[in-house]
Parts: sequence; C-alpha cells; structure tokens
Amino acid sequence: MGDRYVVTKTNDSLPPLRWEEPPEGPVLVLLDQTRLPGEESELVCTDVPALVEAIRTLAVRGAPLLGIAGAYGVALAAVRGFDVDDAAETLAYARPTAVNLGYGVRRAAAAYHAALAGGGGAERAAAAALAEARGLHAEDAEASAAMARHGLELLAELLPGGGYRVLTHCNTGALVSGGEGTALAVVAAAHRAGQLRRLWVDETRPLLQGARLTAYEAARTGMPYTLLTDSAAGSLFAAGEVDAVLIGADRIAADGSVANKVGSYPLAVLARYHNVPFIVVAPTTTVDLGTPDGASIEVEQRPGHEVTEAAGHPVAPLGTQAYNPAFDVTPASLITAIVTENGAISPVTASDLEALCGPSAPGHDQVMG
Amino acid sequence: MGDRYVVTKTNDSLPPLRWEEPPEGPVLVLLDQTRLPGEESELVCTDVPALVEAIRTLAVRGAPLLGIAGAYGVALAAVRGFDVDDAAETLAYARPTAVNLGYGVRRAAAAYHAALAGGGGAERAAAAALAEARGLHAEDAEASAAMARHGLELLAELLPGGGYRVLTHCNTGALVSGGEGTALAVVAAAHRAGQLRRLWVDETRPLLQGARLTAYEAARTGMPYTLLTDSAAGSLFAAGEVDAVLIGADRIAADGSVANKVGSYPLAVLARYHNVPFIVVAPTTTVDLGTPDGASIEVEQRPGHEVTEAAGHPVAPLGTQAYNPAFDVTPASLITAIVTENGAISPVTASDLEALCGPSAPGHDQVMG
Repeated sequence: MGDRYVVTKTNDSLPPLRWEEPPEGPVLVLLDQTRLPGEESELVCTDVPALVEAIRTLAVRGAPLLGIAGAYGVALAAVRGFDVDDAAETLAYARPTAVNLGYGVRRAAAAYHAALAGGGGAERAAAAALAEARGLHAEDAEASAAMARHGLELLAELLPGGGYRVLTHCNTGALVSGGEGTALAVVAAAHRAGQLRRLWVDETRPLLQGARLTAYEAARTGMPYTLLTDSAAGSLFAAGEVDAVLIGADRIAADGSVANKVGSYPLAVLARYHNVPFIVVAPTTTVDLGTPDGASIEVEQRPGHEVTEAAGHPVAPLGTQAYNPAFDVTPASLITAIVTENGAISPVTASDLEALCGPSAPGHDQVMG
Repeated sequence: MGDRYVVTKTNDSLPPLRWEEPPEGPVLVLLDQTRLPGEESELVCTDVPALVEAIRTLAVRGAPLLGIAGAYGVALAAVRGFDVDDAAETLAYARPTAVNLGYGVRRAAAAYHAALAGGGGAERAAAAALAEARGLHAEDAEASAAMARHGLELLAELLPGGGYRVLTHCNTGALVSGGEGTALAVVAAAHRAGQLRRLWVDETRPLLQGARLTAYEAARTGMPYTLLTDSAAGSLFAAGEVDAVLIGADRIAADGSVANKVGSYPLAVLARYHNVPFIVVAPTTTVDLGTPDGASIEVEQRPGHEVTEAAGHPVAPLGTQAYNPAFDVTPASLITAIVTENGAISPVTASDLEALCGPSAPGHDQVMG
C-alpha cells in the first residue's frame, strides 16, 4: 500500500489532496491530516486499498473532500488497470455516514462506464473517470465560494450588528474541500470582511479535529481564534459570548435532519436554549433525498481505543468499554438555516430542501438521484 | 517539598488521603490522582507548600476531600511548629471555587486557636487541630453514607421502574471523600441494590477525571459502565438511554446555583430538553449561604496547556490561546433536586436550601456561617 514522505513546512499550504501525473504518478497524494498540526507530511496512494486505509484512519476526511477522494480513487483504479467496479464498491463503503463519498465514487464510475459504452476503450474510459474527478474537484471549489457568499449574507441578516463571535465544531475548512470548505469558508469570508470578532474552536473529541485542524487553519489565515474543550461551550453560551454556531454536515436527510460530527447535537440544543442561530453549511452533494429522515441515517461507530487511549497510552482502566459514535443527528427543528451553494433555507423544511437540491434545482446532477 | 514513593497495586484500594504518625510522620500521605489509573503512587506531604502544590496540580481533588485535606494541612503546620495562620491562609486560597477547602481550613484553625486561647499551649493546640481534621474526615464518611441513602430513595421515587441508566460527569466517588463520595456513592448504593443497569461515564475533558478516576472506581466495584466523550452524551439523551444525571458540586450558592466541573451545565440543558432528572449530590459543607447567587461564584481559570497539549505534546498550533474554565454554573431552575446528608430538596429553592443547611439545620456548625 501507499508509502509516505515528509515534506518541509513552507509558508504555502499543502493542498489536502492532489493528483500526480507520470513520472511521479499516476498517484493520489494526500496531506496526512492525522499528523497535523505537528507535521505536514503527504501520503502517496498508488492503489485503492491504500486510499481506503487513508479514509478509514481519517488521513483524508471531511464530507466534500471524501467525495473528491472517492472520485479520484475510481480514476486511479481505472488508470492503473484495476477492476473499476470492485474499486468503486470498496471505496463507497469505506465509511458509512458521509454521503459525498458514494456520490463522488458513483460519478466517476458512471463517467467511466459511459465512455466504455461509447466504445472509447479502457484508456479513454479511465481518462473520462479522471476528468470527472477533476470536474467534481473544481465544482467543489466553486460551491465553496458560493456557500461563503450565501452564508455571509445570512449572517448579515441574522446579526445586523456585525462583529460576529462564531462557535464551530470539528473542521470544515480548506482541508475538507477543493476550495475554502463549508462552515469555515463562511467564517473566512466574515474575517476578510472585517466582521469576525472571535472564532471559538471546539477541540472536538475524540480525534481533536478542532484543536489540530481548525486551529491550524485559523492560525494560518490570521483569524482571532480561541480553543476550548467541547464541554466549555456551555459556559460561553451562558455568558452570552456566542452569536452564532456554524457547522458542516456529513449527510442531510430529506426531512432536514443533519448528521455531523458527534457533539453537534448538544450544541444545537444549547443554541436553542440560548436563542442563538444554529447554521449548517454544506454543498447540495451532502443532501441525500433518498434518506427520508434522521433515524434512517447510519451513524458510524468508531473503535473504543479512540476514547480509552491518548497518544497510544491508556487513559482508562484496561478493559473499559467505550461508546464512540463518530456522528450525531440534529433534527431540522433545531436548525436555524441550511446554507448550500444554491442558497440558504430558513426555516428548514422538507419541501424547501427539495426545491433547493432536488431534480429541478440549479446544477442538479442526475447521478445524485 | 514532599517526596513520592510508588506502591505495588493491591486488591485493596489505597485511601485518597491518610495521616501518618511518627516514626513515618507526622505527614499527610495522598494517593496521587494525577497518575491513576496507570499507577497507584502516594505523595508524602511533609509541609504545607507540598500540600498546596498537590492541591493545585489536582493530585488531591474533589470538593469534600479538599476540605479534609485543608484541615489536615492546618494540623500538619501546627504539629510541625510552622505558622498556623500563614498555613491556613495559603491553603484556603490554593483553589478558589470549592468552598469546602476554606471550610476545612477554618475548622481546624478555629480548633487550634480555641485550644490556644484555653491555655493549652502549642502542643495541645496542634492536637486539637488534628482532632478536628479527624473529626471532619469521619463526618464526611457519615455524610457520604447518608447522601447515598437519600439519593437512592429519590431515585426510587423519580424512577419507579428501577434499573437505572445513570450518566455522570467528573469523579465523585471514594477518591473525593472520607466515605464513598457524593453522586457516585448514590450510584454505588443503586448498584448494591441491583438497580444500576448502566453507568455512563463522561470522560471529562480536559483532565479526564471520568476516564481515569470514575472508570477506575466503577471497574473496581464491578459496576456495568461505559465510557464516552463528553460530547457523545447528546446522542445518548436523544436515544432515550439516560434515565438520570447525577453529579457532585464544588460550591452551591444561596439561590441554589451549582458550580461543578465544566461540562455540567451543558448536561443540565440537555437533561431539561429531554425531560431527564438532573440531580446534584453534595454535603451541606458545599453549600455556601454567604455566596448569594451563581454570578457571585468565582470560577477558576486553569492553564491553557491543559487543552492545547496531550501527554506533554502539543495537539494545537503553537501559540494557540485556550479558554479553560475548571467549572461552570448551573442555575437552580435546571436542577431537579439537590441531595445532601440532611435530605433532598426538590424543586430547588433558596428557602428550602436554607432550611436544609442554614443555622437551624441539623448538624449545623457555627464555623460555617
């Protein structure tokens, strides 16, 4: 499986994912997010099993980026002459909750098969899969910019005083996207507009994506940010220090229920109790109209050692059993607005969500259905 | 300052604190709670500065135990011929939030000065301080047993179906007490009564007292327990898997506001939203009628490195600023009941709290006022 090399830190951010052509490639090169912020190292995936391992260990993560990675994974299998359907199957089920992964895989596989059916041969089909992955990558960057625009407009409407103190959870920035991300793209836009007073960063246990990744992105872009344990958010709400909560999503069901990193739901309840807007930012590729409601979303259970160990050392008695869901589900009733690249809906209703993302929505892709 | 020795693990629990007479002593020996569960080592305090350091680093912790430690600390200074008033002053302000610390210190110092005033000389005064510390230690064990009894009765009333699934936060067991503790003493009583179906243990970031200490006590006493990140509690509430929340307290104001380990307030909001009883268990020594309300409680801010580092290694970018309050404050309106050794009050009102703990309450001690 893929090998790893370490690169020297530079002032330029490494992209979270890049396709490398020969002579280095064809390979998919990932910024290993498990090693941030201490080390910026890249993981070179020469085949699909290496990519699946990188997905499972969260070296590559975040709903939009998983979609892009899945598409490139199919292209990688095709270009290198592996069985494309096998690769697509393995990739699509590497993690169960983020709907984007399967979406990206299906798009690249569909392009591959369409080219084959058109009589182009394996090489042209592989090129079609790769073109589709590149297309998805570029679309995601555009979607990110559009979400930032719509999100910023929404904040201006909801909080006319400006000077936002935003609380966020997990990581939703350039590390999960072909562009600036989802929720963090809105925060970055607010920062550029001189309207970000404070970014409160939940550390996001157990894997600390907030401490390791969001703080890393906030520091690089010069945002005024403060890190806190997930539990300390309650004290901030109680003190009136939070103007809005902005988070991403891993899957949005047809009824507007949002699966996102575990810890999102308690924030939604706190936000409601304190009358603070709770805003979900995600591309329409994260909306899965085929999943009717929150109860139908499969929530990935992660290994207990993520909770019982820290840096490889036990922090709980040996034999301790852990409950470690990767995600939780927030019902639409607790969500002030969902922001997509097609605009925002508020309140969140099934019909408005379908109008925004369904077959008649702008930019809808038939593969999605 | 005090030196440390490691003892072999035995089947018997080491007490969290013990007084050692000559020839080993006079010293105060603490079970070093920062090293649990991996290592059971004892910290020998030969003077007050060593004890203050142990209090600040949380080698000894938990509201009731801090009171006992404070009293023994005054006795230690007296027995060894140090300035008792200096020692009392330093000890009382070693940590600001737990009211018990100052209470224990004042009781031992008052006993010392009363004996001096009675003409007994320094040696007899020191003996009086030590007797007072021992008395407080024994009282706390009795209070613990009474809280367990009252708490179990309350659970039976609130949850007539039995088979409790209890969520707890931080550590409130034998490690914080001369007896079995506060909230965890109630859980232990439920376990002995065959009524504990599951103990959900919040890991309790940043210092993981849940993972390290509560799981350790639960494992030792054979409770059915499961560890979770603090944020995952939301998913348990949403799934209907929590019948009651039981926590301790570091200070209870006259209006019934409860300062407890950070993360308690979000649990109270979640419990209210899901209509689950939220119960605070604490001895009357934790009630401070001199603090009028929650806003008047000083909340200790702990160093940022507790959040930005794990096991001494940075988990966030260098220079990251952290918000790290040790406690949060839950208003009486979110608390179903407060259980003390004198009984339980529900709902929590200022007048009922005063009746339970004020000058006319059973066992009231004048030093408290």
